[in-house]
This record gives sequence, structure tokens and C-alpha cells, in this order.
Amino acid sequence: MKSLLQYKSTIDNFLERGIQTGEPEGLYEPMHYILGLGGKRLRPALTLMAAEALGGNVEDSMEAAVALELFHNFSLVHDDIMDNAPVRRGQVTVHEKWDLATGILSGDAMLILSYQLFEKYEAGKFKSLVTLFSKTAREVCEGQQYDMEFEQQDEVPISLYLTMIANKTAVLVGAAMKMGAILAGASTQVQESCYNYGLNLGIAFQLQDDYLDAFGDPKSFGKQVGGDIIANKKTYLYLKSLALSDQEQRTELQHLFSIKPGKSDAKVKAVKDIYLESGAADDIKREIKSYTEKAFAQLESSGIKGESLQALKAVGEELMFRTV
Amino acid sequence: MKSLLQYKSTIDNFLERGIQTGEPEGLYEPMHYILGLGGKRLRPALTLMAAEALGGNVEDSMEAAVALELFHNFSLVHDDIMDNAPVRRGQVTVHEKWDLATGILSGDAMLILSYQLFEKYEAGKFKSLVTLFSKTAREVCEGQQYDMEFEQQDEVPISLYLTMIANKTAVLVGAAMKMGAILAGASTQVQESCYNYGLNLGIAFQLQDDYLDAFGDPKSFGKQVGGDIIANKKTYLYLKSLALSDQEQRTELQHLFSIKPGKSDAKVKAVKDIYLESGAADDIKREIKSYTEKAFAQLESSGIKGESLQALKAVGEELMFRTV
Repeated sequence: MKSLLQYKSTIDNFLERGIQTGEPEGLYEPMHYILGLGGKRLRPALTLMAAEALGGNVEDSMEAAVALELFHNFSLVHDDIMDNAPVRRGQVTVHEKWDLATGILSGDAMLILSYQLFEKYEAGKFKSLVTLFSKTAREVCEGQQYDMEFEQQDEVPISLYLTMIANKTAVLVGAAMKMGAILAGASTQVQESCYNYGLNLGIAFQLQDDYLDAFGDPKSFGKQVGGDIIANKKTYLYLKSLALSDQEQRTELQHLFSIKPGKSDAKVKAVKDIYLESGAADDIKREIKSYTEKAFAQLESSGIKGESLQALKAVGEELMFRTV
Repeated sequence: MKSLLQYKSTIDNFLERGIQTGEPEGLYEPMHYILGLGGKRLRPALTLMAAEALGGNVEDSMEAAVALELFHNFSLVHDDIMDNAPVRRGQVTVHEKWDLATGILSGDAMLILSYQLFEKYEAGKFKSLVTLFSKTAREVCEGQQYDMEFEQQDEVPISLYLTMIANKTAVLVGAAMKMGAILAGASTQVQESCYNYGLNLGIAFQLQDDYLDAFGDPKSFGKQVGGDIIANKKTYLYLKSLALSDQEQRTELQHLFSIKPGKSDAKVKAVKDIYLESGAADDIKREIKSYTEKAFAQLESSGIKGESLQALKAVGEELMFRTV
């Protein structure tokens, strides 16, 4: 079985040549631009891997897989507007390169186009895939709304933070896995196991991202280490530190998250010290381990056996035990 | 058979009670707000009327009909952002009442929710309806893109202007009619006739809107007469006047469309005089008549007979021979 990375080039190839657009060019240029900025193609790769692991056909699964990538890029274009982000993957964002209206409208067209990619499947499969897709897309919007609301709130309960990252990130990983199962014609029970496996992996992955953002190795972590701290982003580590620490630490942490110093090294170090001393760093490691184990346990008890089981486990291992 | 207006209350009722949303409230409040601002509910009413005319069940057709209304309102929310519009139906627009991010995100959720409304139909019908819906939604985006591009251009070929209004407005009228036919289980041929009937009616309706905006009766026309002229909006009348008039008139018209005087009465009168003198006003009346006749001729030759034919004709007559 191929690794996630090996699927990337097949997916990139389809993204370049397999999507029919048309006139007016001004509507579709931004779509080709954002897709051309690259990315790991994680979601479509998971769909293809799950489909292959369960005896499905990779080539036939491509449109559904790519629909998820298109949806993901639609959400990046709209999120970048909402977050006022000037840069994405080292390049200017769509609304900066063109304008606000173009960002909104070509995003809308991308969302619709992602629905159209499912049309190649027969009616029964089409309905299963589109129903899952819509449910997931709604949840991603809900996650983004929670994320924006949290920015305006001083304190956010950890449980609601977990709901937010589940919706904003993990449900799409779950859906990617489940789509593979649907495409392979797997039973409802196997579909659900794949979904829960992806969902829990997705939460673990996102928590790991929170952790690595503070404690990752600058040489191998893809983004700037400390980026969340510099941006005063309320991550799991921040919220858990507030919950676990004493009054003095709380006040210091809240102060540190109210400033944006020109040189951030001292601030990053001070925040990381609180994350460690409060026990939040240990706590998040336990949570990552717990969600990862839950994911694998659900897969084990799913009834999936033999090579399929090994192949699906390999997907999760590749995702969670990454070095970057 | 009921009139368009009589369907409105059934539709309003469903819009108020029949759509399941949820948490976070901040995402769905703007949706209920924009739907609560009213509107003629023209598109869903057409679906219900077409379904009923062809022997379908009105109650069973409601979700598909309402999906079109939800889509229409999604496009209003996003268009209002793109057009920087502060007011919609006499009330503040969503992005003004909340903010830009809320306007984008709740619009996205509305688009996805409109797809979900089709899920009650069995797989075959679901696929037909969703495929038509996506195609139409893409065309509406393309129409909006053309519309925005035209604002930056000095001259726009009439043929491209017609493509723009067909995409931005008429395809949704065509789709509303065709959905009624699909819901009633009509043949592909009848579906296509319904679509072409709605498409041509939609173009005629939009041209009539351009005409009435300049020459309508202020007592019965819903909007401010002369509104397009005051806003320097390049309508069919403007573009056709440029095409038909001599150099002197062209220069005057282009000058009039470059100014925004505090008192607009003199400007509106001067522009209307050019519309009349150039022959553009007569031309648009001929075009409206021609598209309306084409619509009815296609319906006559569709194979639809008897009461169904009369009922569908009544829809178009109600639409085109309105006084408001």
C-alpha cells in the first residue's frame, strides 16, 4: 500500500487536469490559484487509502476524494477573508491578490463545484456521499463560527473547545475515511468505524498541532514554533493552563496574552513555562495519547480484519507519528 | 389552481417552522433574519405550481421548492456584501447588522442547508434535483461575476448582457419550473419544456424589470422609478442606447452616467429622453414581447396538454402581466 505522500502526485495531477471549469475566467482563476499553492492533500489521500484498504478502486474514488480537497480549499479562501489573513502557504491570499468580492464568489463556486464532482457516481452512492458531505460541511461552518466566537470570549470551556476542533477539523478527517468506505461498498458498520477512527485521529492530530506549535522541533515543524502564542491564540494549552493554574499564574498568562511585543522570544518562553508548570503540557500529551488509542481501539473492534485492518492502521500511524 | 400569492403563505409557514438548524445560534440567526424579511417567494411558488400542474404533490414538493428560496437568500446575503449594500427590503443587510465574517459564514451555511433539504427524496430523484440545483447555482455565480466585471467595463456587448441576466436571474426561474416537473415525475421532454419556458420567461421578466425601472408607474412599481439611472447601472436600455444612438447622444449619455447629482430629476429625465429617442425603449419592448412569446410557444409545443397546459400558462401570465 502506498503512503500518504505517494497519493499526493496522483491527486495533484487530477486537480490540475481533471476539473472542468469554464467562463468567466475571473471566477475560476482564483480556484486554480489556491489549488496550485499545494498542500499535503491529506483529506483526499485518506479517502483513497481507505477505499483501497477496503477493496475499492482508487481511480473511481478520485472525484469524491478531490471534492473534499476542493471543499477544504473553499473553506481556506473564506476563512482567510474572515481572519483577515494576507498570506497562505507563503503566497498572498485570494482576497488580497484579487479582492473581497472575488474571494467570496469564487469560494462559493468552489463549494458548488465540489458537489458536482459527486455526479459521476450512481444515484444510491451519490446520495450517501452527498449527504455525508453536506453534514460535514455544515459542521465545519459551525466549527468556524465557534472559533470566531471564542476569540471574543475571555474563557472557553475545554469541552466546547474540543467541540470546536472536532467540527472545524476532525469531522472532515472522519468523513474522508468514511467516504473511502462508502466508495468501496463497505457495510454501514464498517463505514461508521472508519468515521469514528478518522474523527478521533483528527482530534488527536489537531491537539498534537497545538502541542507542536509550542513544543515542536523548529527544524521539522512546518510552521513557526510559538506562532499560536505570538498570535495570542486560545489553544487547548492556553485554556487548560488557565483551568489548572493558580491565581498568580492565571493573571500572568492572561497578561501575556494581552500583549504583542515586537520581539516575542521572552513572551514565548514565559508562556511555555506556564504551560509546563501548570501541567497543561502533560495533560495535552495524555489527551493526544487517549484520542489516538481510542481511534485505534475502535478500528480494532470494527470487524475489519487482515490486510485491510493493517492498511487502515498504517494510515493513522503515518498521520500521528509524523515528524513534521 | 392557486395564484402565486396564494402559495406564499404556505411557503412562509414552512420557512418559519420547517427548517431545522441548531447550535451555534450565531450562525443561524442571520438566516432566520434574512428569510424573515419577506419577499415574493416567487421561485418556490413556481416549483409548487409546476408540480401541481403536472399532477405532483404540493406538500411533498415543499422541501425542493424551499431549497431554491434558501439558495436565493444565500445569494442575496453574499451579493449584498459584494455590492456593499446597506439595505435589503427596507432593513439593514446581514453584514451590516452583524459583520462581514458572519455574512460570509452564515451564507455558506445557508447554501449547504439548501442542499440538505433535498435529502428527503429517494436517491434517483435526489440526484436529478441536486444535479439541476448545482448546475443552476454555478450559473448564478457566473452571472454575478459577469455583472461585477461589467461594472468595470465601458461597453458591454448586448449578447453578453443577455448571458449575464440569463445566468444571474433566469436560469433559477427555469430550474424552479423544471424542479416542479421532476417532482411530478414528468418525462425528460416535459422537464426540458418547463425549463425553457421558465428560462425565457425569466429573461423577459428581467428585461421588463429594466424597462419598468425607467418607465414604470411610480404608484405600482415596487422600487424607486429611475433607480438604475441614478445608480449609473448599465442596463439593457443603456447599452442598447449606446449601440443605436449617434455620436452626440452617446457622449451625452456617457457623461450622464459619469455623474451623481444631488437632485436627480433632471438627469433621470435626460437619460429617459435618450432611451426613447435612440429607439432603445421600443427595442426592449419588442425583446420583452419576443422572449414572452418564445416562452409560451415552447410550452405549447411541449406536448403538455389540457388543464396542465392552462395551469402552466397561467403561471407565466401572472408573472409577465403583473402591474407591480
